[in-house]
Formats: sequence, structure tokens, C-alpha cells
Amino acid sequence: MTAFIFDLDGTLIDSVYAHVLAWQEALADFDVSVDAWRINRRIGMSGGMMLQALSNELNCEVRPEMAKQMEKRHSELIENFRSKCRPLRGAVALLQSLRADGIPFGIATSGNRPGIDPSLLALGIPDDTVVIEGKNSPHGKPEPDELLRCQQKLQVEPEECFVVGDAVWDLLAASRARMFSIGLLTGGYAPSELFEAGAHRVFADPAELLSSLYQLGLHS
Amino acid sequence: MTAFIFDLDGTLIDSVYAHVLAWQEALADFDVSVDAWRINRRIGMSGGMMLQALSNELNCEVRPEMAKQMEKRHSELIENFRSKCRPLRGAVALLQSLRADGIPFGIATSGNRPGIDPSLLALGIPDDTVVIEGKNSPHGKPEPDELLRCQQKLQVEPEECFVVGDAVWDLLAASRARMFSIGLLTGGYAPSELFEAGAHRVFADPAELLSSLYQLGLHS
Repeated sequence: MTAFIFDLDGTLIDSVYAHVLAWQEALADFDVSVDAWRINRRIGMSGGMMLQALSNELNCEVRPEMAKQMEKRHSELIENFRSKCRPLRGAVALLQSLRADGIPFGIATSGNRPGIDPSLLALGIPDDTVVIEGKNSPHGKPEPDELLRCQQKLQVEPEECFVVGDAVWDLLAASRARMFSIGLLTGGYAPSELFEAGAHRVFADPAELLSSLYQLGLHS
Repeated sequence: MTAFIFDLDGTLIDSVYAHVLAWQEALADFDVSVDAWRINRRIGMSGGMMLQALSNELNCEVRPEMAKQMEKRHSELIENFRSKCRPLRGAVALLQSLRADGIPFGIATSGNRPGIDPSLLALGIPDDTVVIEGKNSPHGKPEPDELLRCQQKLQVEPEECFVVGDAVWDLLAASRARMFSIGLLTGGYAPSELFEAGAHRVFADPAELLSSLYQLGLHS
């Protein structure tokens, strides 16, 4: 294996819990009441797909124009949370180590610039890093589109890629793209849930992945 | 079985995600950096025990006097979160139904009055409900003390009690108290984690527990 494709929110940045509460408040502002754990389990899909999933699950209708307003409100509310662009333990060191070792990596996220710019800055990655944004993909995760675009831009083959993600949606998308996947516990999922979604390996956080790269055939 | 003992935060009230972020901010104010998912997995212990667990896990020292200040800061910060006393789906209806059917229940929480008063008010339970607070227990969950005090006050036997909780700490305490336990997914744990901690049954939320009471021999 020669390349890594990282999810951003919840995988490199400690933002899942903030996004859960920002979504819950955004939905409440439109009189849609959803318990936080249900949002947690749907985070990592594109925002529109998540709203569709929640509305199916809760048997309430979210019309497309309302979904757009909810997404806008979520974008406003997330700004209030201190952890929205806080790197996870070991994230900065992991990316530095890959760069030092000449191992190509990219980021494939459902998020978009300029919203994700502070997170990319906090991670200290150079401007020429491959970053695939959600807005240019017709389908977000668990569809494989974003991963495939990232892999093509990295100029490697799908079979050469490890996808690193915290949500089952990352791992399902990796399977669909014929890529191996690494699950991290940083999104609040249990190891069993990540393995059931197809994870090749599960590690606690980016720090543990860094110290375990040898298990992937990448370090001596 | 004739009685229920409920955990409060995360089981009847949708406050886990708010508590996670309030703890993370409180710790950060004392230059202790902890990823949110690690706090999530330690919530439901007493605050003091949680800080001890995190400091062991992260290999940093939290002295008792600093722990007290962190707990105080957490109590201040939690006030900023909208979901801190929001009942979970079905929680109010479940308690109403138990009361209508004459099934005794109590609440055993690591929280304390007056902090928990808005939550109790939101649940609409009468003033004479048995509520065991954390401050009067020498040891919080996963020790069984709070559950045993609740059971004694309900004037039932341990074997007659179902403990309902969202965290593995509730379920471990139930086993220690020789009580059956019911896990809910509302704290962000996976079913596998709750079963591994000894849950007799796992349901999504209080609403699903209410519609499943017949499985516990309590409804026709």
C-alpha cells in the first residue's frame, strides 16, 4: 500500500461532538426534535443525506428547501464551538511523519472551503495537499465518489489506498471504492461497529495509527 | 420484577454530548487536552472518578484540588448548553406510564441538586419521587452504592430491580448490586458495548423501552 486518504471531521479534527450539537440546535430551530446519539450515528454522510436519513428514521418530512436552510443554520452554529477545528491526538504528527517518509496522502471530506480552512490550517499541511471537498461530488459518503476522486488526484490505484475514517460511512465508502480502510474510535463508534462496516484495522486515534504504521507494511 | 432504577443524564435526559464538551472545555481551561470520545466513554462515573480515569489513561497528573476546580468549571460551562435538560424521546411518557401502572421507580444519579432540578422538572415527575444524588454516596458508579440506596428507599429487593442506563458504568454497577440491567443507545455506546457490560436487554431509547415493557414481564 502506498497512499492514505483521510476523512477530516472526527478523524483528524475533534469536531464530531460539536457537529452533533450544532445539528441538533439547527434542527430544533425548525421544530425538528432529534436525540443527539441519532445525529452522532449519521454524521459523516453529506449534510443533505444525513437529513434525509434522520427524516426517514423519525418519520418526519424535511423538504429540500428546508434542508438547505437547516444546513445554513448548522454552518452558523458550528462557529460557536471551541473544538470545531481542534486536531485530534497525534493528527499533526501523523501527517508530518507521512510527509517526511514521502508517503502520499489526501483528504476527502463532506465539508467545504472556506468552512474547513481553519481545520486545514490547524493541521499544518501545505497548500498543495490534495483536498477533495463535498460540494463537487454528486454523492457524498457512503458513496465512493469522493474517495475515487482523491485517489485519482493522488495518481495511485484504488488497491494502493488506505482510507482512514471515524464513521461507518467512511468505511462503507472505502469498500465500495475497493480500498482498504482503517477505523478510528475518535467519532464515538465502538470497535465492533467499525469492524462490521469493513475496517481492516481499528486504532484509538491518529497517535495510535502513527505508532502502528508498521502493521500496515509502511514502517520498519 | 417490580421496580425500575433510572440513571438520569444520558438515560432520561439528552445531556451526554453537552457534558462531553463542557468537560473538554473545563479541562482545556487547566491546560489538560483530552479528545472528546475519551470523555464520552468515561461519562457516567462520578466526576472525580472520571478525572482520575482520564489522568491515568493520558498519563498526566490531576491533583485533588485541581479536580475540584475542574468540576466547578464544568458546572459553570454546562449551563451554556441548550440540551442539558432536554428529555430523551419517550422519557416523559415512560415515567408517566410506570406511574399510571403503579410500578415503583427511582432515579440514581452522579449529579446533585440544585444542578439536576431543571432536568427533574423537565421530566414532570412528582416531588416525592425517590432521587439518589451522587454527593451522598462515598463511591459513584461503577460502584453499586447509589443503586443499593435507591433500592432500599424504594423498599424492594435488589433482585426485583431493573436498572436502566446508557453507560457501561451503570450496567457494571447493576451487576455489582445483583440487579438486572437495561442498556439504552442514548449515550452513544454501541449495543455490543452495553451487552458486554452485562445488559439483559438493549433498547434504542426510552420510547423503545416503553413499547417493549412486555418483554420484561411488565405489560400485557
